[in-house]
Amino acid sequence: MTIKLALAFCGAALLIPSAFAQQTPAQPATSPQNAVAHFSLDNGLEVVVIPDHRAPVVTHMVWYKVGSADEPAGKSGIAHFFEHLMFKGTERHPAGELDAAVTELGGNLNAFTTADVTAYFETVPPEALADMMDFEADRMRGLVLSEEVIGSERDVVLEERRQRVESSAQSLLSEEFTATLYQNHPYGIPTIGWMHEMEQLNRADAARFYDQYYAPNNAVLVVAGDVEPETVRTLAEQTYGKVERGPDLPPRVRPSEPERNTSASVTLHDPRVGIPSFLRAWVVPTYRTAEPGEAEALDLLSEILGGSSRSRFYQEVVVKSGIAAQAGAGYDGGAYDPSGFSIYGAPQGQHTLAEVEAAMDTQLTRLITEGISDQELDRAKARYRRGLIFARDAQQNMAQMYGNALASGGSVEDIEQWPERIRAVTPEQVQAVASKYLDPSKAVTSYLLPPATGAQ
Amino acid sequence: MTIKLALAFCGAALLIPSAFAQQTPAQPATSPQNAVAHFSLDNGLEVVVIPDHRAPVVTHMVWYKVGSADEPAGKSGIAHFFEHLMFKGTERHPAGELDAAVTELGGNLNAFTTADVTAYFETVPPEALADMMDFEADRMRGLVLSEEVIGSERDVVLEERRQRVESSAQSLLSEEFTATLYQNHPYGIPTIGWMHEMEQLNRADAARFYDQYYAPNNAVLVVAGDVEPETVRTLAEQTYGKVERGPDLPPRVRPSEPERNTSASVTLHDPRVGIPSFLRAWVVPTYRTAEPGEAEALDLLSEILGGSSRSRFYQEVVVKSGIAAQAGAGYDGGAYDPSGFSIYGAPQGQHTLAEVEAAMDTQLTRLITEGISDQELDRAKARYRRGLIFARDAQQNMAQMYGNALASGGSVEDIEQWPERIRAVTPEQVQAVASKYLDPSKAVTSYLLPPATGAQ
Repeated sequence: MTIKLALAFCGAALLIPSAFAQQTPAQPATSPQNAVAHFSLDNGLEVVVIPDHRAPVVTHMVWYKVGSADEPAGKSGIAHFFEHLMFKGTERHPAGELDAAVTELGGNLNAFTTADVTAYFETVPPEALADMMDFEADRMRGLVLSEEVIGSERDVVLEERRQRVESSAQSLLSEEFTATLYQNHPYGIPTIGWMHEMEQLNRADAARFYDQYYAPNNAVLVVAGDVEPETVRTLAEQTYGKVERGPDLPPRVRPSEPERNTSASVTLHDPRVGIPSFLRAWVVPTYRTAEPGEAEALDLLSEILGGSSRSRFYQEVVVKSGIAAQAGAGYDGGAYDPSGFSIYGAPQGQHTLAEVEAAMDTQLTRLITEGISDQELDRAKARYRRGLIFARDAQQNMAQMYGNALASGGSVEDIEQWPERIRAVTPEQVQAVASKYLDPSKAVTSYLLPPATGAQ
Repeated sequence: MTIKLALAFCGAALLIPSAFAQQTPAQPATSPQNAVAHFSLDNGLEVVVIPDHRAPVVTHMVWYKVGSADEPAGKSGIAHFFEHLMFKGTERHPAGELDAAVTELGGNLNAFTTADVTAYFETVPPEALADMMDFEADRMRGLVLSEEVIGSERDVVLEERRQRVESSAQSLLSEEFTATLYQNHPYGIPTIGWMHEMEQLNRADAARFYDQYYAPNNAVLVVAGDVEPETVRTLAEQTYGKVERGPDLPPRVRPSEPERNTSASVTLHDPRVGIPSFLRAWVVPTYRTAEPGEAEALDLLSEILGGSSRSRFYQEVVVKSGIAAQAGAGYDGGAYDPSGFSIYGAPQGQHTLAEVEAAMDTQLTRLITEGISDQELDRAKARYRRGLIFARDAQQNMAQMYGNALASGGSVEDIEQWPERIRAVTPEQVQAVASKYLDPSKAVTSYLLPPATGAQ
């Protein structure tokens, strides 16, 4: 649920709950044969290796420390557009060759762009790792950006926007809600881009973006799977090691949010909507930006309020009172800059959306005024931890968590210390962050409603 | 009222209604002895001279084609901060000398910054014009920007923000409403700046801003008053003519607005509020950006709906039904980029804000569905024109209107043709712009309310 939420309000596909999964009791990452290795090449490329010998598979990911929130003003969509362009071929490897190679091996490849990062990955048999590195190292600086390629791929991303955003009431609302939630920070701008700006993206924009951000000193290589760190180091030096260092980048400082004084709402009436729903959010600190303990407390608050069917919203408003069909909460703590904490709900049967909102507000107020017990917090910590065990089992999630942390301002140590920091959270800290950050008079709410009948 | 409104929602102090005032029957600007002169110096400085021999006074204004909407991302407030720095002295004229000279003459001087322009002006006896030109030409490129000056003046603008914005519920709401109204365009950022960004403005930011924007080829000189164009030309060549041309500026393209699909609202409850009020706005084209005739139709629509006590809102909702104490409309057609059209109201006696909104919405819907008569339009045109006669009588308004037009992408011809273009507007055009742009399902509304009592 948190994942969907994160997507919904900042265009960031960050897998927060799985972001710290390796430290579960099942298989400590610090056991000798599975120790995570972390080193850098001379040209600045950071490398993380996560050995996992359960199956003859490796996940190879290259993370660039650039996302849509780093785009120049007026050039929205360039980061995601560039993700597409990365598949268009180099002098050595024409378009389609990488895809064909991976498919031939029965592997898979993909890429994604968020507000904070752009990542490319392949899952292949270990013997193909050297080839994958060669492909990725080659396109890190060697892309051929012809006018023809730019024009046709721009049509592709425009069509992607039409299909994914323009044709969906939920997506349109989500975009305009996000533009309202953020008053100054570029998280308010959709990652896919505004249509009218995407239409203007050109070769010069793409070339400038590539020159500035695609370089070993702005990237993190993550290899998870059936391989040893020393092998990865040797292969990386033979491939990525030959890529020239790019220009030094200025500090990654985006325009930041002013304090919010108002509440706001954004409403879309649409004939495609049957059951009304709302989503209410606040901009809150994230792991990188929070005071010590606050991000951990927000993660647990999200779990206690609405992370699962054992949470308060679900138990009270869905099960006991039967007012809501849906009632949850989410926190996007892995974002580089302060991001959203949200609650959302939809009514059941003949109940109204206003009833759902009121019931959820009552729950939130109760938590703020009465706090939570040790027991409830312990149960939430246990649920939270159990949720991660499943996540850690997937090799790709492991690569994802390290890559995202390192490409978004975190460190390997942050990941390793995270379980202890979650364990240390007190009930008072959870109550305190709820009280400090979830002020109803400073919330932004989106309403997705059926067509208006007469008066609004 | 339009002036206040414009201030309220985009921080722009543009004097739209007076912007085309010279063409009233009272004193045609094209009469031989009062012809407006317009020429450029070799270094690119545009010059406008508006002879007015009724009194021995001249208004001398220098307009720079830069405002807060041109600021680099994250540097909000730099344009206005720079306006302050312009009074801090050059090698030839230490801080305070200009002010002392003008005061000694019994004149006055001031400056202002909007989203689109920054202007400096002095009103003095004609014999002091050469001195004023010398002062302004000197500080166009010769400012001394020491660390000490930067630090102390930054404290001044921070205090200005505290007094004018932070201490006013209306101003805080207006800022956050504006941030919501604009989803992508920098008009959403307050001209005075966000506090946290103003605090970081430094000498390097100021120097870069000055080098880029303060130059004869990015400025317009306007002289109105008891002086002949040839005299102004000679004096201008002796002063401004010696200032070196600055770097060529790229086209003035700011990030533009996507289409809005949602309605939104921004609410502030504040103990200082007694009577509730609302302001509802839409982003609409301006004179520079509109299809032919649309901006003129929007100006007349604003007059018909709520420009005066003869307008529909006032007559119907204040006078006849007695629901509202206040009910008006405004249009900011002089902005460089699409800007706000707004309606606003407050209840009378025991009536509620919801009643006022409903009554005004009914009026707006009536106009959209039933249109307006020729008679009503003619009366509105006449009122509009009469309102301008008073404005044109003030010499400073004349200078203001030409300076603003030329510094915001307009031309002398635009000003001269404006009365004819207003005369040509048809009732169908007024109805069409209302229908096209004032869609209630895509409006943004701000609510300024007394403290919430219990449930919101």
